[in-house]
Amino acid sequence: MNYTLTQLPERTAKPRHSGLTMVMDKGLSLREVEDFLSTSAEYVDIVKLGWATSFVTPHLKEKLAIYREAGIPVYFGGTLFEAFIVRNQFEDYRKLLDQYSMQYAEVSDGSIDMNQDEKCEYIRQLATQVTVLSEVGSKDEAKIIPPYKWIQLMRAELEAGAWKVIGEAREGGTVGLFRSSGEVRQGLVEEILTQIPFESILWEAPQKEQQVWFVKLLGANVNVGNIAPHEVIPLETIRLGLRGDTFTHFLDK
Amino acid sequence: MNYTLTQLPERTAKPRHSGLTMVMDKGLSLREVEDFLSTSAEYVDIVKLGWATSFVTPHLKEKLAIYREAGIPVYFGGTLFEAFIVRNQFEDYRKLLDQYSMQYAEVSDGSIDMNQDEKCEYIRQLATQVTVLSEVGSKDEAKIIPPYKWIQLMRAELEAGAWKVIGEAREGGTVGLFRSSGEVRQGLVEEILTQIPFESILWEAPQKEQQVWFVKLLGANVNVGNIAPHEVIPLETIRLGLRGDTFTHFLDK
Amino acid sequence: MNYTLTQLPERTAKPRHSGLTMVMDKGLSLREVEDFLSTSAEYVDIVKLGWATSFVTPHLKEKLAIYREAGIPVYFGGTLFEAFIVRNQFEDYRKLLDQYSMQYAEVSDGSIDMNQDEKCEYIRQLATQVTVLSEVGSKDEAKIIPPYKWIQLMRAELEAGAWKVIGEAREGGTVGLFRSSGEVRQGLVEEILTQIPFESILWEAPQKEQQVWFVKLLGANVNVGNIAPHEVIPLETIRLGLRGDTFTHFLDK
Repeated sequence: MNYTLTQLPERTAKPRHSGLTMVMDKGLSLREVEDFLSTSAEYVDIVKLGWATSFVTPHLKEKLAIYREAGIPVYFGGTLFEAFIVRNQFEDYRKLLDQYSMQYAEVSDGSIDMNQDEKCEYIRQLATQVTVLSEVGSKDEAKIIPPYKWIQLMRAELEAGAWKVIGEAREGGTVGLFRSSGEVRQGLVEEILTQIPFESILWEAPQKEQQVWFVKLLGANVNVGNIAPHEVIPLETIRLGLRGDTFTHFLDK
Repeated sequence: MNYTLTQLPERTAKPRHSGLTMVMDKGLSLREVEDFLSTSAEYVDIVKLGWATSFVTPHLKEKLAIYREAGIPVYFGGTLFEAFIVRNQFEDYRKLLDQYSMQYAEVSDGSIDMNQDEKCEYIRQLATQVTVLSEVGSKDEAKIIPPYKWIQLMRAELEAGAWKVIGEAREGGTVGLFRSSGEVRQGLVEEILTQIPFESILWEAPQKEQQVWFVKLLGANVNVGNIAPHEVIPLETIRLGLRGDTFTHFLDK
Repeated sequence: MNYTLTQLPERTAKPRHSGLTMVMDKGLSLREVEDFLSTSAEYVDIVKLGWATSFVTPHLKEKLAIYREAGIPVYFGGTLFEAFIVRNQFEDYRKLLDQYSMQYAEVSDGSIDMNQDEKCEYIRQLATQVTVLSEVGSKDEAKIIPPYKWIQLMRAELEAGAWKVIGEAREGGTVGLFRSSGEVRQGLVEEILTQIPFESILWEAPQKEQQVWFVKLLGANVNVGNIAPHEVIPLETIRLGLRGDTFTHFLDK
């Protein structure tokens, strides 16, 4: 840090087990990746190439190499996994992960129907090859999953071998964990936390108000994701109580 | 493409007659233009220097040279044309186009009142000098043009020599084709399409939901515009059915 | 300017006493600062490193050096001042300003309670060391300060030695001068202007509609702030009547 302030919450350091920041790269150029890492590498734990953007992104190997050089793992968005599954191309997906030397992968069912057993089987199989993040929640704002079902799914997916379970929000932050207004489904989050350890969950929270809400509820070292590259520095100040929204949260009363 | 997926819609390739993507550059630096082109050149057919930003943009000649080098035509936003017209400086505008070796120009009346004959006369004159895009629709959200009038204007402007007619939306996507909420005026679009060939229309659609709506209605190869530079890669996935919003649209039933 | 148009409002040039543009840098990389300055240096009068982002921003000295090289003063956001004050670290803050050779500083009380005398005392002390901007208005949207109080605070702070007083809006433009919808508190602004010279006020106006509103009320050379780096070129066109929103504002009737 550039100077000294008292009464700051303790932040975990890399490699983090909690306090993770997952960033969504939805098509950065190579130079933009470099710029992003020059300001934020220390604060970013993992990067998702959003949904299937990797399909149309030029210089994909070079991009992966830049992240690798910086020691930041990268994975393809869950929608890409689903795009292969819906086309009966799971084996092709496994080969793709190898071809690009991916160390992480996401299993999700945000855009397709998949029963729990099938999803857990994919997690189990992929977990032999990579570290798996699995995502719960639909991208369809009309599909409301009740809390007990979120809990059951998260528990089953962690047992099947998922490293973290992700709470769905999309790039915009308007589905899954959130109402279409972006407001947090507070009761849902609180009920989940009675059953699933908070370190095991990565909450997608692209909007500032959502990040603030999670930091206030769970502290500086909550895991959050779908952070835009230019929002990592601002997020770090929210975690530390150095932005208006959380300014008094960590101060001695 | 970086890997192989079945059941993708066919995308047109450059030089495209349909499936065009028009991007709005509202003041990118030279290096940002390079970054943008390094990821998106293949997917961008034409770039607009938004409204009169070219007036205050430094290094304009160098910027135009970078786009030219990449084989991507550039034009000045229609508001610049109108700024010259309202000042009785049409001849100056023609000289300006020559001075910067512009190959394309836009004729619009979004901020001024101009009758149809006058507008078509400008199209006719400029069409002897450059390729003309003409824009229909007001920037004033209080001015609602009825569908039959949109059709009449579009037809007259194409006959006067416009290469494409543009449906107005502004940078934000809240006027012209759209309600102030950003919602598409669906009946308007459908009625226009009964009379004007879809290849001849370029729909301004800066918001994701608007792009999704047009791709669902008109397919992967609809012409859309006012796309922000960082949204070209995401748009390409929407066109291909590789984002949640259009995920099932192109799949075999 | 790249070409000649008649009937443009006169714009002040650097060093400006009115018509100032204050930009918020909330974590740009060094190269992004260079890019930003390459397009906008001429139009930017002062840069704020938003709230306490300077705490977590790498390469801070290098960043300050780039702005200094371009002749653009930089200051730390008021929330950083408040973070030191609330921790009883005012002397540390003064040392920090020296350590980074800061020429400007902000005094604010957007996130803490501070009485007027105390605030003016800080302004008086810091004014012996740097040029002071002081900010009026709360970041808490529930705290509505009545107009007479804004005027009293602004007058007292200018008398205490503030160079400019800033009207609070946050990064989003939804508190202080604005309703939570972003709409300007018009009566407030007009009443302030009956008592405080308009050159002495810098209005935070991050949203386009807010910038348009101030330009229409106060002309091309109104002081505005919290402008995002990529919005400086668009703002300049708004000032000059070269964007739809102010297109007819400066034309001879």
